[in-house]
Amino acid sequence: MIERYAFGNVLETGAVVCKPGCAEGAVPFLETEEAGRRFSFHMGSGDRVYGLGENVRGINKRGWIYESRCIDDPYLLESRRYLYGAHNFLLVDGSVRFGVFFDCPGYLAFDIGYTRASLLTVTAEEPDLDVYIITGDSLTDIVRQFRTLVGRSYIPPLWAFGFGQSRWGYRSADDIREVVRRHRELGLPLDSVYLDIDYMERYKDFTVNAETFPDFAAFNREMKDQGIHLVPIIDAAVKVEKGYPVYEEGLEKGYFCKKADGTPFVGGVWPGNSVFPDVLNADARRWFGQQYKRLLDQGVEGFWNDMNEPSVFYAADRLEQVRGQLEELKDRPADGGLYHELASMPQKLSNPLEDYKTFYHNIDGVPVRHDRVHNLYGCYMTRAAGEAFERLLPDRRILLFSRSSAIGMHRWGGIWQGDNHAWWSHLLLNIKMMPSLNMCGFLYTGADLGGFGADTTEDLLLRWLAFGIFTPLMRNHSCEGTRLQEAYRFENPNGFRHIMGLRYRLLPYLYSEYMKAALDGGMYFRPLAFDYPDDPHAPQVEDQLLLGESIMVAPVYRQNADGRYVYLPEPMKQVRFRPDGSVEEQVLSQGHHYVAIPIDEVVLFLRPGRLLPLAAGGCNVDQVDFQNLTCIAFPANGRAVYEYYHDDGITKDYENPANRRTLRVSEDQ
Amino acid sequence: MIERYAFGNVLETGAVVCKPGCAEGAVPFLETEEAGRRFSFHMGSGDRVYGLGENVRGINKRGWIYESRCIDDPYLLESRRYLYGAHNFLLVDGSVRFGVFFDCPGYLAFDIGYTRASLLTVTAEEPDLDVYIITGDSLTDIVRQFRTLVGRSYIPPLWAFGFGQSRWGYRSADDIREVVRRHRELGLPLDSVYLDIDYMERYKDFTVNAETFPDFAAFNREMKDQGIHLVPIIDAAVKVEKGYPVYEEGLEKGYFCKKADGTPFVGGVWPGNSVFPDVLNADARRWFGQQYKRLLDQGVEGFWNDMNEPSVFYAADRLEQVRGQLEELKDRPADGGLYHELASMPQKLSNPLEDYKTFYHNIDGVPVRHDRVHNLYGCYMTRAAGEAFERLLPDRRILLFSRSSAIGMHRWGGIWQGDNHAWWSHLLLNIKMMPSLNMCGFLYTGADLGGFGADTTEDLLLRWLAFGIFTPLMRNHSCEGTRLQEAYRFENPNGFRHIMGLRYRLLPYLYSEYMKAALDGGMYFRPLAFDYPDDPHAPQVEDQLLLGESIMVAPVYRQNADGRYVYLPEPMKQVRFRPDGSVEEQVLSQGHHYVAIPIDEVVLFLRPGRLLPLAAGGCNVDQVDFQNLTCIAFPANGRAVYEYYHDDGITKDYENPANRRTLRVSEDQ
Repeated sequence: MIERYAFGNVLETGAVVCKPGCAEGAVPFLETEEAGRRFSFHMGSGDRVYGLGENVRGINKRGWIYESRCIDDPYLLESRRYLYGAHNFLLVDGSVRFGVFFDCPGYLAFDIGYTRASLLTVTAEEPDLDVYIITGDSLTDIVRQFRTLVGRSYIPPLWAFGFGQSRWGYRSADDIREVVRRHRELGLPLDSVYLDIDYMERYKDFTVNAETFPDFAAFNREMKDQGIHLVPIIDAAVKVEKGYPVYEEGLEKGYFCKKADGTPFVGGVWPGNSVFPDVLNADARRWFGQQYKRLLDQGVEGFWNDMNEPSVFYAADRLEQVRGQLEELKDRPADGGLYHELASMPQKLSNPLEDYKTFYHNIDGVPVRHDRVHNLYGCYMTRAAGEAFERLLPDRRILLFSRSSAIGMHRWGGIWQGDNHAWWSHLLLNIKMMPSLNMCGFLYTGADLGGFGADTTEDLLLRWLAFGIFTPLMRNHSCEGTRLQEAYRFENPNGFRHIMGLRYRLLPYLYSEYMKAALDGGMYFRPLAFDYPDDPHAPQVEDQLLLGESIMVAPVYRQNADGRYVYLPEPMKQVRFRPDGSVEEQVLSQGHHYVAIPIDEVVLFLRPGRLLPLAAGGCNVDQVDFQNLTCIAFPANGRAVYEYYHDDGITKDYENPANRRTLRVSEDQ
Repeated sequence: MIERYAFGNVLETGAVVCKPGCAEGAVPFLETEEAGRRFSFHMGSGDRVYGLGENVRGINKRGWIYESRCIDDPYLLESRRYLYGAHNFLLVDGSVRFGVFFDCPGYLAFDIGYTRASLLTVTAEEPDLDVYIITGDSLTDIVRQFRTLVGRSYIPPLWAFGFGQSRWGYRSADDIREVVRRHRELGLPLDSVYLDIDYMERYKDFTVNAETFPDFAAFNREMKDQGIHLVPIIDAAVKVEKGYPVYEEGLEKGYFCKKADGTPFVGGVWPGNSVFPDVLNADARRWFGQQYKRLLDQGVEGFWNDMNEPSVFYAADRLEQVRGQLEELKDRPADGGLYHELASMPQKLSNPLEDYKTFYHNIDGVPVRHDRVHNLYGCYMTRAAGEAFERLLPDRRILLFSRSSAIGMHRWGGIWQGDNHAWWSHLLLNIKMMPSLNMCGFLYTGADLGGFGADTTEDLLLRWLAFGIFTPLMRNHSCEGTRLQEAYRFENPNGFRHIMGLRYRLLPYLYSEYMKAALDGGMYFRPLAFDYPDDPHAPQVEDQLLLGESIMVAPVYRQNADGRYVYLPEPMKQVRFRPDGSVEEQVLSQGHHYVAIPIDEVVLFLRPGRLLPLAAGGCNVDQVDFQNLTCIAFPANGRAVYEYYHDDGITKDYENPANRRTLRVSEDQ
């Protein structure tokens, strides 16, 4: 059951697709204070709190204070309170069981036992929000209801389940050709290459540098002939430049965010001084979305939207103001005082929380200050693109994912888990974020495998890939200036070929589970506690995940480890994929195990009565035969079944019953 | 066996106390390249590499590149290569077994399978160093030989094994009184309160702010009457201020580091423009050490030396130069170019690696550029103090520990593990650093419990204390601006009282083990692989430590965990200290276990045939009765023994045979 409680003047966020009428009386479970500015709940000592999508720390969010405040911060440190996305959904389980969604476009704070160990308080900056309380038979049931409320998750084309290689640093078509050539030479599978900001002409959205990519349409065709999709980045901000059509047109139409004086807000991003499309304005959003056609027309079939928190390196007014202070600073004595003034320049130049108060959106003719709707910006930028694709190519799936997001955006695109680092701790964070995001509707997601910032190591990349083969978005991405981390850069390509190749053997299962989760409001990745509610140890397990109906994964995320502890909530079949291509099956009993997992092996666990269908593999998705499958089975009572979903992966006939069939193995046969 | 191989013109570091003659021929185990600039070793796939003292990552250092380059950086991120100390000792175990010490005062890089998985290379910036190769019967034996080479580890007074409370933010005697009062009121034990930089008069070393601490000598007496020692901080840099005697005197005598032009190098630290005592100059070192007498004379018996990497916020020349650029910057257009110039101010102002090349030490009359001896600075600052204490109070132990260090300094003082953060990952790092530091001679060490930077949580502090009760230095320390984290700030003092109180019950054992490790060249904390060389799983275990001869600890370092996996290399007795004061004993079999460890309990593991002596406890060390002990025993073949060390804890009659006796339990009795 879903009940909606409304407080104040609710700004429409678009998160919910079928809004129920407003319930009467007090909000259940929560104490409401200050007319909807604060809500609190007394947690039982054993209660767990799940949710918050993309955020720091564990699957159980107890013991920290989190905020919804989309920001560009690649360190994802334990002590941060907010990351790139804002996902205001919580699930409480223990003494009571309920879900709660705070539908609100502005800042929120979730104090989940930080100030007081037993108290959960949610505080809104403005007491204008809808609170949805969801009750149900199980955590999975509550999630399913919530997902019905917020609408079906985005579905990418099938090729987007292939492996993608990316790096901020590929500067030309020749760079890309080299990446493809080396993957193909070594038999490393590859379906896509991502284009970071350098493909553009001086970082101008929807342009292509004509010197480094002389004929982009032809290059797209050349790549597609090799089974490769190019996926360019689109940044939120538009360069201020006379004669640049996107800028000129948007300016003329008044489609950029404006300051109180009616002039466009100018902030610095990669292109220097830039303006910000007012994607919360329906006309501007349509116009901005239409710009993607410039690249669609050249054969592009996928995009990633970046810098859309929005990231603002500096506000132009602030920079001007700081420049004005230099006159005085230059005459100060060279001592600690001057040092302090100069060393704090980055803070003086960039104060997003203040800058966000200096510009406005035009929502249905009403000016709304950005900070009040801040968390919607990335969401609506991606919605702009998604709506355009539906208009322009209604029958075709286009790959689309974003850095910033809010619930609601899950209908238009996926996300990557932000600019992380080549740290083992971020591999673990990647694991923990998956189910938290899934429950919020974000199914097409994954982290930058190998780590974006900092230098990776061969073993970290191998272990990360060994988890990444299970994440819907599987992309190796890294930052300019860090160690080169394409799989072919390392000493021994065999381990990489084996692990990355396994993705393509697993694709029938992974795609099938993705589609079922999207179509049925399920979670692709689930914590053990969701499927084993009566197992007292299950809530403790935060480094193993159930994936779909058949398997459990337990990645290694510690350097120099030869294996790891695995908890089996029931007997399972350990399936070990050895680098020689052989598969070893062994039934393990319920309980705790130490499982050896060498660096070039992948181990997964098959649940009783279930099947794992496997394809023969391939070097890109086109090569994978989704019809001729081998099944690994762990029969229970002599039987094992699997509901297999498959479709053409291109069009949108998702609900066609022919897409689903049941695979069965019976030991009698 | 220890062999020394000399390369180039070796600068004396003081690390070694009895230098063997120079060996002939090639260095064993290592390939020597470029006449001693680079050494390499081909690692077997199962080889482990231990050592490097205070650094990031695991106990087994394989898979990363580390450097010796003391620096002030509180984030201790996985991708850093160097922290506050430089500890050039490695132990290789597996296909071969040897220790190697690179005695060298400048920068070194240790590539331990980062560039190539199987290759260890050590590269010196200058090929002037002594390489010691140590072979022996076991890892422990090699460590013992190494420790004989580098001399006996520092021994603090007994009271320094009590709990210390610290915070950057205690501003006055009244603040301190409040801290003591609240600990005493709640029965939280306390032996010392640390004074961070605010006790000084405008951050001037060896001064006391007369307004906030009106009679410091009387205040020390008042505190001692309550069983509390005050431990002030001393920073490396000396404020440039006319009339400040330490500055005036050092300047007159030429005891500060100088630039090439002979004038003192001026850099900014807390007091603003400051100069740096040339502690590598024997006369200056003696003079600087003598300054501690100003505080000793007021009753101080312990110090912590800080900012001695040395930390330099800005070089005055650089600040002057940057100021000169402001004239031009103020006329630039307010765009991305200006932004970049201004936003990079911190990097322009602070470039320690370049600044370290701009000043000189006077070593025996020879000017030596700082970068060539950089890693010795903190070491020699602490040696200055340690030597002064030996001159001034030859029979008395003075507490002394430092932030920066190098091997050699372990004879003069301990270290704390730098300015960490309130992160669960830093609790784990604390655990891993302990044995790495112990093998390098640093026994008196511990981390800032609860975390220095960032906001702690009650559960993190409880779990960190539950490990901290085992570390010789047990101090809760935090940074100005973070959440207050004295134990009495939290909801329920019972857990804190129980865990902190347990430290005082364990003190007879902990002090005994400390003293034996110091006197016998042993390791207080050891990885399992050191004691169980034939156990193939032991090298995998990096989150459990053997402590002394009797026990193993296995701390919980994950939020919301109700327990953890523990590996027992042999049967052990699980000893559980419950908050009600009861002790539960249970024998567990060899192998893997999941052990429940509630947030307010401490569990340790007693080895077969061993004893754990316990005192009744106390609210400070003076109250602990070290003679009337209760023993928990895990007899093997009917017997359990323990070699118990105790002394007066104040003077230095360490070798007196009366300090050692054997405790025995026999099941026949």
